[in-house]
Amino acid sequence: MSVTAPLGFRAAGIAAGIKSGDARDLALVVNDGPSRAAAGVFTANRVKAAPVLWSQQVLRGGRLRAVVLNSGGANACTGPEGFQDTHATAEKVAEVIDDSAGEVAVCSTGLIGERLPMDALLSGVEQAAAQLSRDGGLAAADAIRTTDTVSKISFKRADGYMVGGMAKGAGMLAPGLATMLCVITTDADLTAEQLDTVLRRATATTFDRLDTDGCMSTNDTVLLLASGAAGLTPDLAEFEQKVTEVCADLARQLLVDAEGASKAIAIEVVGAASEDDAVTVGRAVSRSNLLKCAIHGEDPNWGRVLAAAGTTDAVFEPDRLNVAINGIWVCRGGAVGDDRDKVDMRPRDVTITIDLGAGPHTATVHTTDLTAAYVHENSAYSS
Amino acid sequence: MSVTAPLGFRAAGIAAGIKSGDARDLALVVNDGPSRAAAGVFTANRVKAAPVLWSQQVLRGGRLRAVVLNSGGANACTGPEGFQDTHATAEKVAEVIDDSAGEVAVCSTGLIGERLPMDALLSGVEQAAAQLSRDGGLAAADAIRTTDTVSKISFKRADGYMVGGMAKGAGMLAPGLATMLCVITTDADLTAEQLDTVLRRATATTFDRLDTDGCMSTNDTVLLLASGAAGLTPDLAEFEQKVTEVCADLARQLLVDAEGASKAIAIEVVGAASEDDAVTVGRAVSRSNLLKCAIHGEDPNWGRVLAAAGTTDAVFEPDRLNVAINGIWVCRGGAVGDDRDKVDMRPRDVTITIDLGAGPHTATVHTTDLTAAYVHENSAYSS
Repeated sequence: MSVTAPLGFRAAGIAAGIKSGDARDLALVVNDGPSRAAAGVFTANRVKAAPVLWSQQVLRGGRLRAVVLNSGGANACTGPEGFQDTHATAEKVAEVIDDSAGEVAVCSTGLIGERLPMDALLSGVEQAAAQLSRDGGLAAADAIRTTDTVSKISFKRADGYMVGGMAKGAGMLAPGLATMLCVITTDADLTAEQLDTVLRRATATTFDRLDTDGCMSTNDTVLLLASGAAGLTPDLAEFEQKVTEVCADLARQLLVDAEGASKAIAIEVVGAASEDDAVTVGRAVSRSNLLKCAIHGEDPNWGRVLAAAGTTDAVFEPDRLNVAINGIWVCRGGAVGDDRDKVDMRPRDVTITIDLGAGPHTATVHTTDLTAAYVHENSAYSS
Repeated sequence: MSVTAPLGFRAAGIAAGIKSGDARDLALVVNDGPSRAAAGVFTANRVKAAPVLWSQQVLRGGRLRAVVLNSGGANACTGPEGFQDTHATAEKVAEVIDDSAGEVAVCSTGLIGERLPMDALLSGVEQAAAQLSRDGGLAAADAIRTTDTVSKISFKRADGYMVGGMAKGAGMLAPGLATMLCVITTDADLTAEQLDTVLRRATATTFDRLDTDGCMSTNDTVLLLASGAAGLTPDLAEFEQKVTEVCADLARQLLVDAEGASKAIAIEVVGAASEDDAVTVGRAVSRSNLLKCAIHGEDPNWGRVLAAAGTTDAVFEPDRLNVAINGIWVCRGGAVGDDRDKVDMRPRDVTITIDLGAGPHTATVHTTDLTAAYVHENSAYSS
């Protein structure tokens, strides 16, 4: 399963000693071809971690032989030395698989502002290379976890080829592209340009619409690698659908595992004058701490939905807004609607529907509630 | 003290039964002149409560005889009926003080989306009118509290005149102008235009730079009333300074009383290419839940400061950013700086200094930490 489900890929996940304890913290994914076409999307944050700067540069060539990923340190805000560390990591991978560092992507995740323990990391790369196998996908997915409580993997079969993937992410989840580390593989045969187009479209409606805490990461990376080992070029529309399904599946797993969350909230904006307007309103509502607290308290507080929508410049008339929570239209025409006591807030999944009454466009943004557990986890992270 | 410190004002604060229990919930402030010049600033939220719509209309005339304020209900998202309730409240005040409703401002605060109990409110207005006095300022400040744990009042004496004020606000504090209810009075003699200019300038650098939870209210109102009873027209620059001092004093009181907060955080942005850039970066950092959790945990996590700054379009080079926390430059040139163990995080006041290295401009935005107590308070508010 995971990234090794498609033909042509080997992976490994090992404990290199980057993290304290004996948890896995280093993953290696290798594409044995025959194709090496690849594409990537990266964080829109202007403060980019060294591995992001490196991998963006590598991806200009449109080819990847391997991806090395570590948890236990983000290698962000580490200056020129941090970039050298990333470079040295790629060189080490190139050495052990006897290939070029110019086709090795690097991904790191963990605490910002600390150098990586390079001795442990480089010897870990050797160890991982020795363990590369066709069934290493699960161990690789395990090795990239930080505060993630579970591994996130996905897998879809199409007609004659497969798409597999793994992801990590539990905090600092806000759109700016991607919002975490993710490697997707396929054994179909596609060009780098085709992969790039498909990946951008697939992430735009999945990972990019996930916003659990409004905090954009410095390390977000989503890679798509094609081995061509299945020996066929797929119908592009079908391929895009499969990749989108894998992205949506992984995004859903990130949402459910978001730090401290007890509710998964879908903010469904309908009746918008444009898709951008729908996303803007969805995002503003998803970032309202007050609303997120209310949902945690199982309080269908539609007033906080309106207060958040009112901060945007989306096209709507405040006195025409309708809001439903779990199917009950508690706000009609910008004022009190149906009895809020009818709303069943007990399920983990909560859907908030906002009808802007301004057009035919829709978008859904996914977020979580705000809990004391989130505060606790993020007060203690680096200590 | 409070709004009745300057000559020419009477006030009262009584328990009208709008809230459950016997807490004060209705305040009345009356300007006995000889002048009635007044100005106001209001929330920038497009979803505006009925009393905001009413008071904005009244202020077009530049005169106020009275302000009636209630806690126990925001009268927001209440439709045309809610607006009629505000109108009826102003008419009742006009009746009991024998004046015109067109010079009566109305302010409401409390839960969004519920009608006010008008019988209780209107008989409360009669009761408050009967208790109006020159020393009613404290009771009025007490009556406008919601989740505020203390009354907020301020008072500054100038050469021959005074400026006094009261405010309420503990949650939904984000700039969009004002961020709460506030009434400021003076016995100096100024025109409505002068008051408007001074009030806009004073709030822009005080209330507008307070952002405790990123949530913009539907009811924010700051009013400035001048009675002229001291019989002099002040130097405008000195008057602006006094009004700014009262606003800053009240803003500080709001910050310290913000829901669940255990730290008062000043985000001081220096070296900016423009004041707007400085405010933009300050605001982005003040809204990072992850940083606010870290400060709660007394963790000088400068990586989260950079991650937030990186989401803005302010002019800076990521590898030239310097960050100090409580005076220790823990980040230099976008990377690790001085030893973070030197930072003393124990005081309630925390100062984060961000040097953008891009120009001479500065701004400070004030926020609080994010705590389990905030989550608890806002999960339970309406239930």
